[in-house]
Amino acid sequence: MQNFEFYNPTRIIFGKDTIAQLADHVPSEARVLVLYGGSSAEKNGTLAEVRAALGTRTVREFGGIEANPTYETLMRAVATIRAEGLDFLLAVGGGSVIDGTKFVAAAVDYKGDAWDILRTHGADVTGALPFGSVLTLPATGSEMNSFSVISRTETREKLAFGSPHVFPRFSVLDPTKTYTLPVRQVANGVADAFTHIMEQYLTYPAGGMAQDRFAEGLLLSLIEIGPKVIASPHDYDLRANLMWIATLALNGLIGAGVPQDWATHMIGHELTARHDIDHARTLAIVLPAMLRVRKDAKRGKLLQYAERVWNLRDGTEDERIESAIARTSAFFESLDIPTRLSAYGLGTETIDGVIGQLAQHGMTALGEHQDVTLEVSRRVLEASL
Amino acid sequence: MQNFEFYNPTRIIFGKDTIAQLADHVPSEARVLVLYGGSSAEKNGTLAEVRAALGTRTVREFGGIEANPTYETLMRAVATIRAEGLDFLLAVGGGSVIDGTKFVAAAVDYKGDAWDILRTHGADVTGALPFGSVLTLPATGSEMNSFSVISRTETREKLAFGSPHVFPRFSVLDPTKTYTLPVRQVANGVADAFTHIMEQYLTYPAGGMAQDRFAEGLLLSLIEIGPKVIASPHDYDLRANLMWIATLALNGLIGAGVPQDWATHMIGHELTARHDIDHARTLAIVLPAMLRVRKDAKRGKLLQYAERVWNLRDGTEDERIESAIARTSAFFESLDIPTRLSAYGLGTETIDGVIGQLAQHGMTALGEHQDVTLEVSRRVLEASL
Repeated sequence: MQNFEFYNPTRIIFGKDTIAQLADHVPSEARVLVLYGGSSAEKNGTLAEVRAALGTRTVREFGGIEANPTYETLMRAVATIRAEGLDFLLAVGGGSVIDGTKFVAAAVDYKGDAWDILRTHGADVTGALPFGSVLTLPATGSEMNSFSVISRTETREKLAFGSPHVFPRFSVLDPTKTYTLPVRQVANGVADAFTHIMEQYLTYPAGGMAQDRFAEGLLLSLIEIGPKVIASPHDYDLRANLMWIATLALNGLIGAGVPQDWATHMIGHELTARHDIDHARTLAIVLPAMLRVRKDAKRGKLLQYAERVWNLRDGTEDERIESAIARTSAFFESLDIPTRLSAYGLGTETIDGVIGQLAQHGMTALGEHQDVTLEVSRRVLEASL
Repeated sequence: MQNFEFYNPTRIIFGKDTIAQLADHVPSEARVLVLYGGSSAEKNGTLAEVRAALGTRTVREFGGIEANPTYETLMRAVATIRAEGLDFLLAVGGGSVIDGTKFVAAAVDYKGDAWDILRTHGADVTGALPFGSVLTLPATGSEMNSFSVISRTETREKLAFGSPHVFPRFSVLDPTKTYTLPVRQVANGVADAFTHIMEQYLTYPAGGMAQDRFAEGLLLSLIEIGPKVIASPHDYDLRANLMWIATLALNGLIGAGVPQDWATHMIGHELTARHDIDHARTLAIVLPAMLRVRKDAKRGKLLQYAERVWNLRDGTEDERIESAIARTSAFFESLDIPTRLSAYGLGTETIDGVIGQLAQHGMTALGEHQDVTLEVSRRVLEASL
């Protein structure tokens, strides 16, 4: 096992009818900016519950944060906070809104050009406004981690930052708030969480027994509930499990003390930035190809994945590995998520552009061995056509 | 899944040669009391590393905290802190020292008789001195939770308290510091962690998929490493896995959103208080009998345990359940931990005394259904003779 530091101070308030508990966790003197995305938080009643819980506190609202939250929009929220002297943020929505809120929290008192927060991946963030979240879409894990991904429309860039200053103080997870989500978003959430786990699990054996068992347990659970949680939107236990699994998939726990990959995400980000494909769908396109191209370096873990997650014990090593990768693709497809670039109308001509963006962002040595060069990324994209 | 709140702000610093990092986590102006147990922390060099890391800070030391830390001893530490104006505590040892440090931290500024902290199980603790820990014995999980068990010599009582004010600020877990532990203590650590998991897992099915998979993953890992981690004291990965598994077994994670039992612990505490049997050994005595006596109420989870942990799929339900319980006992015995009261020289005559203590401590409705009456506890003790 590798040396590690694990620290996660976010308080999770989980369950039915928990939004009213905001009253206990937002300071009573706080001047609050509520940030949200489109109209769904209003329509499904979540914003009304939030307003009721905040009571007589000073509250301003800022809607319109995009599915891939943009620097341009978020800087308008920063201006509002400065103009109105607000001091506490509350994100109401999914990972996009929470990611955006993290950036806003870090940007308000940031010295210099706020885009540098992304350029330096958060290294020089020295503080942030306190904030909490009310999660409505299980997927990204942003509700219990210190990471954020922000896009810039002007330059078609999508970059990540992280900082211990942007852990949410608390996150309220009420599974009933996911009942009205569109099927496509739930499916994306399953695929996103699945890939988060794989990025931390499918590397090379490093002797982290609990980490491996936890990751496998989350994968097995997602495989068990994946199609059901989409087909039965009002099944509380299914939605509750998806919500908690997606949080656990990226709260630092399963990745502590083991190598991590994240090459699939880096390529996926460029596909979203250039071609507007949903984040989770880019992962479903890239992951199977990534596993095939890097089969030899990942052999030990691929065999473990085949056995413990897919119960594949017969045939040669290569047969078991290929079968496990094929089942991974089939799982995504069972969620109605196509796993080939061609299904999104993209062909060979798209590859040079993505590789160019990776080069521009310094993504030339990705993965757990830093051996995913631009040439390897090119082969992955070719394998995902 | 049940509604829950999960909050655990303890920072874990895990790995080889990590004690020097104390310098970054104990405030530089702190006036520190280092608390420890017997002579092993000195002999194996841990205390020397701690002193070096604390550098020029004001440091006092308080040794002699017992395996079952006593109120009487700990109140002497409280007096030292008050007399010397110390403001930060550092526990160096296992769960006993950390539990004791939690009590000391809560008692220093406690209004009234400090034994009331135990009598009220921590309900009226409103603050505590900040403290960290350097763990040398994987077992109790105290390094990453807010619970503590304290004994009172005078009255032969052993009571627990918990408070959000007594989470360690940080805990340093260096697996190499466990290399010199006596075999008996390592075996006890395995049994203790195993039973902590069972208390949160082996209740009734409650739809917590990740919680169940995590608990099963920890149990499978302990079963895999149990005898090996004792036989190979210098195998870093084995010791590292035991250390992290024991922490994860009781840091709130696997018990969040699911029912919990803890009847085995409550009876075990009385056996320790009255007969000086090691804590973990009392659990190994009580747990198998507890599962047999409550087989019907626990049937669903016992069958799941049989299948997923012990791979038992053949035979009738009762056969699979009995086989899983027998394997549980055999696992403890494989660690050289006897699982019968008679092996500790105790017979029928001991039962009235234990039941009397349970009655005195209000332990008359234990377990996940609060249906473990004194009569049920008596049957459990009879079944463990």
